[in-house]
Amino acid sequence: MESLKKKIQVEGIVLSSEVLKVDSFLNHQMDPSLMKQIGEEFAKRFRGENVTKIVTVESSGIGPALMTAYEMNVPLIFARKRKSLTLKNDVYTAKVFSFTKQEETEISISQKFISEHDRILMIDDFLANGQAALGLIEIIRQARAHLVGVGIVIEKAFQAGGEQLRRRGIRVESLVRVQSLKDGKVTFLEEVTAQ
Amino acid sequence: MESLKKKIQVEGIVLSSEVLKVDSFLNHQMDPSLMKQIGEEFAKRFRGENVTKIVTVESSGIGPALMTAYEMNVPLIFARKRKSLTLKNDVYTAKVFSFTKQEETEISISQKFISEHDRILMIDDFLANGQAALGLIEIIRQARAHLVGVGIVIEKAFQAGGEQLRRRGIRVESLVRVQSLKDGKVTFLEEVTAQ
Repeated sequence: MESLKKKIQVEGIVLSSEVLKVDSFLNHQMDPSLMKQIGEEFAKRFRGENVTKIVTVESSGIGPALMTAYEMNVPLIFARKRKSLTLKNDVYTAKVFSFTKQEETEISISQKFISEHDRILMIDDFLANGQAALGLIEIIRQARAHLVGVGIVIEKAFQAGGEQLRRRGIRVESLVRVQSLKDGKVTFLEEVTAQ
Repeated sequence: MESLKKKIQVEGIVLSSEVLKVDSFLNHQMDPSLMKQIGEEFAKRFRGENVTKIVTVESSGIGPALMTAYEMNVPLIFARKRKSLTLKNDVYTAKVFSFTKQEETEISISQKFISEHDRILMIDDFLANGQAALGLIEIIRQARAHLVGVGIVIEKAFQAGGEQLRRRGIRVESLVRVQSLKDGKVTFLEEVTAQ
């Protein structure tokens, strides 16, 4: 997605060979027109898949996920994150380890919002180690729903998450794939439609 | 806003005389068409105010705030919440006490995204005790920006927040105002345009 690549090139800040800061348009300040374009792009790529629900994890996934849900005319569910494990009967939960924060959180979705009849599209802002995605997949499995695929705004292709999901046969659509952040520079992989 | 009132009447669950659960369309599962209508309504009410930025607090404010930002064609900033006070030089911070969770969190916005030239519209899903709003107002004050007003999806008019903000001369626009949740029933106040 060329407009997104440009935005990253102009406004993205490479903090280290692992960390790309995009807080001016994606995960602190948000560019609503870009979010709308992102929603349209995901809707286009997953059209024909009969998606019934979009899921994401709070907070920075909500923007792209909401615009996708709007384009596809289906509800969006954002999983809640919390630190402590409070067992509840009416939620599906999964543990997610954050390498950035070096802590384990628990994500949860109310059972009443996903069922075995759902065809779910997962949307997130970043894919790095894939921990959040694996947590959501676990929740979707518990609900016996069908995962149609995963839509990612920025994939850090040099980290293991994307490979891990694709190896499991999951369709991952990343709008841009970053090959490297070495020498303070963002290098993109060619956009591919992985199946 | 009639469509919102109807949604609350049909899907809202009164958990107690203080708690209204609207997680089927607003703050866990989200109805994107309703969010779009909400954004249009806020944009209409604050048109002519030369708003330059929308601010909200993660996570459930992001949906309505993003749609408002899209309609007004301005960036959205969502304040980050965290439990511990980590002093940083490049962020504005404020403390927010949550009565629901009985804990104090800190909210923060990167200094580079708000300046004294900004005319800010604050959007949030709920207004109850007004703690989150007061925290954001404190951040806007630190940045010497101008607060144009506050747009609220659901105001619990029987709690002190709305009154407190209006007494300070702040324009509060609530799409619906709930007068009472007594006897398991949602009673609305007439919609007013408070100045």
